[in-house]
Amino acid sequence: AKEEDAMQVAIAGATGAVGAEFLRILSQRRFPVDDLVLLASERSEGKTLTFRGRSCPVRRLAKDSFAGVRLALFSCGAARSVEFAPAAVAAGAVVVDNSSAFRMEKEVPLVVPEVNAGALRGHRGIIANPNCSTIQMVVALWPLHQAFRVERVVVSTYQAASGAGARAMAELEEQAPKVLRGEKVAAKVFPHQIAFNLFPQVDVFLDNGYTKEEMKMVHETRKIMGEPDLPVTATCVRVPVLRAHSEAVNVELSHPVTREEVVACLSTGAGIEIMDDPKKSLYPMPFPLSGTDAVYVGRIRVDISHPQGVAMWVVADQLRKGAALNAVQIAEAMQRQGLL
Amino acid sequence: AKEEDAMQVAIAGATGAVGAEFLRILSQRRFPVDDLVLLASERSEGKTLTFRGRSCPVRRLAKDSFAGVRLALFSCGAARSVEFAPAAVAAGAVVVDNSSAFRMEKEVPLVVPEVNAGALRGHRGIIANPNCSTIQMVVALWPLHQAFRVERVVVSTYQAASGAGARAMAELEEQAPKVLRGEKVAAKVFPHQIAFNLFPQVDVFLDNGYTKEEMKMVHETRKIMGEPDLPVTATCVRVPVLRAHSEAVNVELSHPVTREEVVACLSTGAGIEIMDDPKKSLYPMPFPLSGTDAVYVGRIRVDISHPQGVAMWVVADQLRKGAALNAVQIAEAMQRQGLL
Repeated sequence: AKEEDAMQVAIAGATGAVGAEFLRILSQRRFPVDDLVLLASERSEGKTLTFRGRSCPVRRLAKDSFAGVRLALFSCGAARSVEFAPAAVAAGAVVVDNSSAFRMEKEVPLVVPEVNAGALRGHRGIIANPNCSTIQMVVALWPLHQAFRVERVVVSTYQAASGAGARAMAELEEQAPKVLRGEKVAAKVFPHQIAFNLFPQVDVFLDNGYTKEEMKMVHETRKIMGEPDLPVTATCVRVPVLRAHSEAVNVELSHPVTREEVVACLSTGAGIEIMDDPKKSLYPMPFPLSGTDAVYVGRIRVDISHPQGVAMWVVADQLRKGAALNAVQIAEAMQRQGLL
Repeated sequence: AKEEDAMQVAIAGATGAVGAEFLRILSQRRFPVDDLVLLASERSEGKTLTFRGRSCPVRRLAKDSFAGVRLALFSCGAARSVEFAPAAVAAGAVVVDNSSAFRMEKEVPLVVPEVNAGALRGHRGIIANPNCSTIQMVVALWPLHQAFRVERVVVSTYQAASGAGARAMAELEEQAPKVLRGEKVAAKVFPHQIAFNLFPQVDVFLDNGYTKEEMKMVHETRKIMGEPDLPVTATCVRVPVLRAHSEAVNVELSHPVTREEVVACLSTGAGIEIMDDPKKSLYPMPFPLSGTDAVYVGRIRVDISHPQGVAMWVVADQLRKGAALNAVQIAEAMQRQGLL
């Protein structure tokens, strides 16, 4: 039910790495914000953050925080989403939730606007923002799926520290000089040293030997693309990079294609920037692309090991397209559809 | 022709990152060295290196450097191998060459001793040591191939700076503090900044869109495993790690297998150490495994996207098993076979 009154926006988790990005993106994209409510845990109560040049107080997230709020952007972990998102919905807000709490619930749309904005219709108050590594992959897969039908995906990720939050980024920055001095470092946020190291674990392990992150890439990709049986396998790896994820993606299509056909197809894809001139060593990289908005695709080639195979390399900023930007784009798509 | 006289060993490229590792490994493995000739470019002439507690002078690599040498370990780049290895052979030496110069020549054995030590018979003086990323992968693939027949390999690599030499490792160490201070850094050895970054390019690009490194993994794997048509695809990525390579390997076998069968098979594999207890976050990682000798395999699981698929994670020290150690193991295998 669209209302004509003021657009009051709440950010739950305003002091986190994604929260900071929400503030920037709402401002940069001139999202209509008449009033902004910043919410965080008790620890951050009393802090102030700046939005459009004005200082805003951070309030403690509570069930009564959402009176008058029309859009609540949540990025404060699954447990808090479960606790507080229903209260926001009950108060009349649309919740776009960055956590994994509701993503696989049948009645909750899981949306990457470039792919399935239509799934927003019929929502019941909560929209789930997909996992960061899934978002950038499905943006790249979607035009290929429409043109050539994707039949299998094998992906290996190179995931930045930011995916584990601001403290994880600080841990990488703190460890690096110590490792260079030959000192032992203690891992606090991550399961192991991340500086000058990497490890094939993002999130916890499940009984099938995959991590939860890897299975998110399987299940969320299927849900977003509307292909409940699509074969997907992932190996998710944390690397000593600050805030953009990279992915080596091998795709099997329903029939053989040329590189030219794939490039032409991807270049029409919404949200995609092709960056692919190998002879000039031009391809997407996480450091220079940090802070950008597109999903960058390079290393596009016909897979020499499979007659219908294509290989590509996909990079996107984890805090922006992988989190805050996609959530704001969901809100924008809802406005266009008269849902917000 | 085996001779009973003294074992004179030459190292061409003694002052490089692999050269230093040759000295360590010959000593650690008690390889029989009666006399050691250290060779390098003019730049390093006059330096001394320590071997078994004794100081050895570094001499300039020249065509007349090899009189009396029985084993010449080369790691000084393909151009110098082409120039000087034939002179070493003409002087009666067996050359184990770490460069790519001779690897794909039909009469040159390309050997990973755990896989194809038999290929050493009938050599003509030069034995090629495979590419680092290929060595560790074929050690892990070989027992699977013997037990279940490997039908396709999809690999994504996470390659350390050491693969580009000692100066590349120094570049990573020099860049890291500068990047943390927000300074711009210049890439000299690598095509781009490597600290807190990564890039999908190792070696130069070829016309099919793959890099030379990626095609080495294709062609060398086929030659070592004796499967000239084995479908292999690789994405090779340089990561900000100092000296061990990691690989996410997806394998398609000739029939379905269980995880238990794969683990049992790999645990019998020569040169392999299984490190795989996900519930304890135990899997191979490049930082703690730097300086070790085995090929470490973890994250072993049935690939949920393919009925005959298996996924695994393979880590090995690039300077040891990926270069110097494998070369010395080749020499040891030749001694066992009476070829040296």
